[in-house]
Amino acid sequence: MAESWVNSAQRIGSDLHLELSRASSKRAALIDALREAVRGGRLAPGTRLPPYRSLAADLGVARNTVADAYAELVAEGWLTARQGSGTRVAERAEPLRNGKHARVPVKTPPRVRGPRHDLRQGTPDASAFPRTAWLASYRRALQQAPNEVFGPGDPAGRIELREALAEYLARARGVRTEPGRVVICSGFAHALRLLFQAPARPAAQRPAQPTGQSPIVRDPLAVEAYGLPFHRQLLATAGVRTVPLPLDEHGADVSRLGRERGVLLTPAHQFPTGGPLHAERRAAVVDWARARGGVVLEDDYDGEFRYDRKPVGAVQGLDPERVIFIGSVSKSLSPAVRLGWMVLPERYVGPVLAAKGEREAWASVLDQLALADLISSGSYDRHVRRMRQRYRSRRDRLVAALAEHAPHVEVTGVAAGLHAVLRLPPGTERSTVKAATWRGIALDGLADFRHPAASEASGTDMPAPDGLVVGYATPSEHAYGAALEALCQALPPAPG
Amino acid sequence: MAESWVNSAQRIGSDLHLELSRASSKRAALIDALREAVRGGRLAPGTRLPPYRSLAADLGVARNTVADAYAELVAEGWLTARQGSGTRVAERAEPLRNGKHARVPVKTPPRVRGPRHDLRQGTPDASAFPRTAWLASYRRALQQAPNEVFGPGDPAGRIELREALAEYLARARGVRTEPGRVVICSGFAHALRLLFQAPARPAAQRPAQPTGQSPIVRDPLAVEAYGLPFHRQLLATAGVRTVPLPLDEHGADVSRLGRERGVLLTPAHQFPTGGPLHAERRAAVVDWARARGGVVLEDDYDGEFRYDRKPVGAVQGLDPERVIFIGSVSKSLSPAVRLGWMVLPERYVGPVLAAKGEREAWASVLDQLALADLISSGSYDRHVRRMRQRYRSRRDRLVAALAEHAPHVEVTGVAAGLHAVLRLPPGTERSTVKAATWRGIALDGLADFRHPAASEASGTDMPAPDGLVVGYATPSEHAYGAALEALCQALPPAPG
Repeated sequence: MAESWVNSAQRIGSDLHLELSRASSKRAALIDALREAVRGGRLAPGTRLPPYRSLAADLGVARNTVADAYAELVAEGWLTARQGSGTRVAERAEPLRNGKHARVPVKTPPRVRGPRHDLRQGTPDASAFPRTAWLASYRRALQQAPNEVFGPGDPAGRIELREALAEYLARARGVRTEPGRVVICSGFAHALRLLFQAPARPAAQRPAQPTGQSPIVRDPLAVEAYGLPFHRQLLATAGVRTVPLPLDEHGADVSRLGRERGVLLTPAHQFPTGGPLHAERRAAVVDWARARGGVVLEDDYDGEFRYDRKPVGAVQGLDPERVIFIGSVSKSLSPAVRLGWMVLPERYVGPVLAAKGEREAWASVLDQLALADLISSGSYDRHVRRMRQRYRSRRDRLVAALAEHAPHVEVTGVAAGLHAVLRLPPGTERSTVKAATWRGIALDGLADFRHPAASEASGTDMPAPDGLVVGYATPSEHAYGAALEALCQALPPAPG
Repeated sequence: MAESWVNSAQRIGSDLHLELSRASSKRAALIDALREAVRGGRLAPGTRLPPYRSLAADLGVARNTVADAYAELVAEGWLTARQGSGTRVAERAEPLRNGKHARVPVKTPPRVRGPRHDLRQGTPDASAFPRTAWLASYRRALQQAPNEVFGPGDPAGRIELREALAEYLARARGVRTEPGRVVICSGFAHALRLLFQAPARPAAQRPAQPTGQSPIVRDPLAVEAYGLPFHRQLLATAGVRTVPLPLDEHGADVSRLGRERGVLLTPAHQFPTGGPLHAERRAAVVDWARARGGVVLEDDYDGEFRYDRKPVGAVQGLDPERVIFIGSVSKSLSPAVRLGWMVLPERYVGPVLAAKGEREAWASVLDQLALADLISSGSYDRHVRRMRQRYRSRRDRLVAALAEHAPHVEVTGVAAGLHAVLRLPPGTERSTVKAATWRGIALDGLADFRHPAASEASGTDMPAPDGLVVGYATPSEHAYGAALEALCQALPPAPG
């Protein structure tokens, strides 16, 4: 503000000279340089700029070049021009609050070093992503794609992928569907969000309303007494109350279903306790849905990984009009791909697509085509088979290590999936998790997955056993042995 | 139900024989065949199945094979087994309501034939997607990716892309930021959803509530009197009321901003009318945001495509703490890629990431890495330059065709973007759109973009001019000439 235009002209002139002499477009270079000078604070707000002719002479450029540059920066809002008061730096161009300069690439702080041994559940072995097969499928998909692929997409997802999935899910998971009922999304959480947003009637027919009220899956929702806290949180944020169902050796006790109109289950492999939902319970929950107009959400999060016998088929196969089947590639390939699917009863297809929005395909169309190719070329099956062998061998090593070093610790839920549950003596869970942390092991206690209302829920005096949830998929192959060794050392000693 | 097991055994036996003789795993083949028979209705609900030994003898397989198969299907819920009453087909296995068979790939109905000439706004030339460059970037990204890429991701998006964007947006759009304030999303609509979901305080500190209430961008939101109906609908669905700001030749009249706490603008190229927001208005809206604690949402939907001079810089550069800059590759590359970004004031980064959800990266991580490579290798700039030339030449052809065949029709908004506005004589818009439809041309009338409350809004007696919004990017290169010819024929004749 106090600076006269003479000083600023001299400063600008000397600053800019070198750059301008090299620039092919002097006008563009001058604009950039002035913008930078304002941004960087060298030209303070309110500073009056030199008249065209002075700066032009100083820099050895035409007067029009300076006039053009000023006009451009006025148009962009960096400078202001008022009759009689000349051109000034605008008042509002503030530097970034933290003082960082826009053009200097700022490195984010280095990632906090992860645990030495990562035995958390939930992610596959990141080193096993089938890069070569995926790239081959991606290349084929991209080369064969018709031009319309790059235009606006179908909110249901690409037909190529929906066809491949309808065939694959029937074959591998006993799902009964056709491509018109498959809706592609970006993963399980996205599916949940869509189901709780989807209105029964199209938007045009109803008044604007908060998205918490949804006719597809209504509040409250019954859930298993143990499950992912992340899912409960997501539901709570959407305004949905969850009511826990007690669990026993046959899975969730669906006979306790009351006035709820929806239930979320993990029938293939209860998460995290590990058993399949018993056949009678499967029948019963479908009967309940039919009798009460309810809907079953089937979270088939790791249905491909079953070690002891043929995969347990999907509950969806029992009644495709009452069960919404939800799956993704997050366990089978990688969460980085961000592709999932819903298999819907016919009457829900329209509302879910309306909730998705016509202009938002959400999942990368090229990745959709790549996955369709991966499935129909057989590469997906080959990858799943390879990973099943790898995870089974890891599970076997875990069981063997415990048998040898901690025979008093029971291992359960190991017939399938990427994690096991270690039952601990009563009262030892918290101290064991702490001991594991001291040894650089990241893992979760069973209590972390328990629904907050699991005990209070009327009539459900469910025991809260002590235990650890051990994910055996995450460590890379060479690090797994050391992780097991550390784990065994962290376990409580045999009683007595 | 009426069928005896003898009959069903014979039918099953004869049906299955051929397949079993080829199958490498007879047990698996038997399970599949029985499941299919139940699904397809050949074995009706309630039908009693033959005893193990009968079917085994019939099929020439071991008794255990049949026993295993029955047990598996009981576990899956297809069959029921009760002491003393044998094994029966479960009551609840219904065929798909529309009678379609799960394994027969059902083709979706053929796409309704599109218009002969597609002059709708909103999408780039789908035939111009840079397949070779994109694949090269994707391959490099995939080959160089560290393993952690395939594990759980950062909800903000990959750092490689955020760094590339911070640099690119500063250079190309005058955006002031650093990678820590860039959040990757799947496009503009996703950004809007996140902004209206993001709570001021973390979820743990507040009671469950419907998502319509958001402290980042509060209801009501001021919008331009003309804009995408799709955006207004999305906001209405989220429970957000929109208040129209009148438009004139300087863009939105931001002096009309009242008690709103947020405003959504298209400053680089008003959509759809086509002018840039005037420098004084840019300053004024930032002043308003500072004085009233408001926030400006800057929708930079086609900022790269400016033909007549250097790009108009982003309003965000005037005050990065008051403006949220939103962009995507939907116009520059393709909506199929589903990648967009928000550049946020520092205080909003945490809430937006919380709304995104820790486990949901939403946008394909591999595509993020590919785009980062495309930008930093210079391929993105080359593609944008090539497309700028192509679209400019199309614009020139449109202007020339109109000058020759319909000199009475004024063309406006052509200094930038992928569409133009043709002003029509009063009262002729509706009939002209109809005439265009008859000629196989798809395009929109200006009225389609007008806010329903544009006229009623207190103090805004905005005129409602007749006009057409003509998108010139969508037709492929060889089809463009014919589209222009058809368009000129559909226009109303010169008055008098």
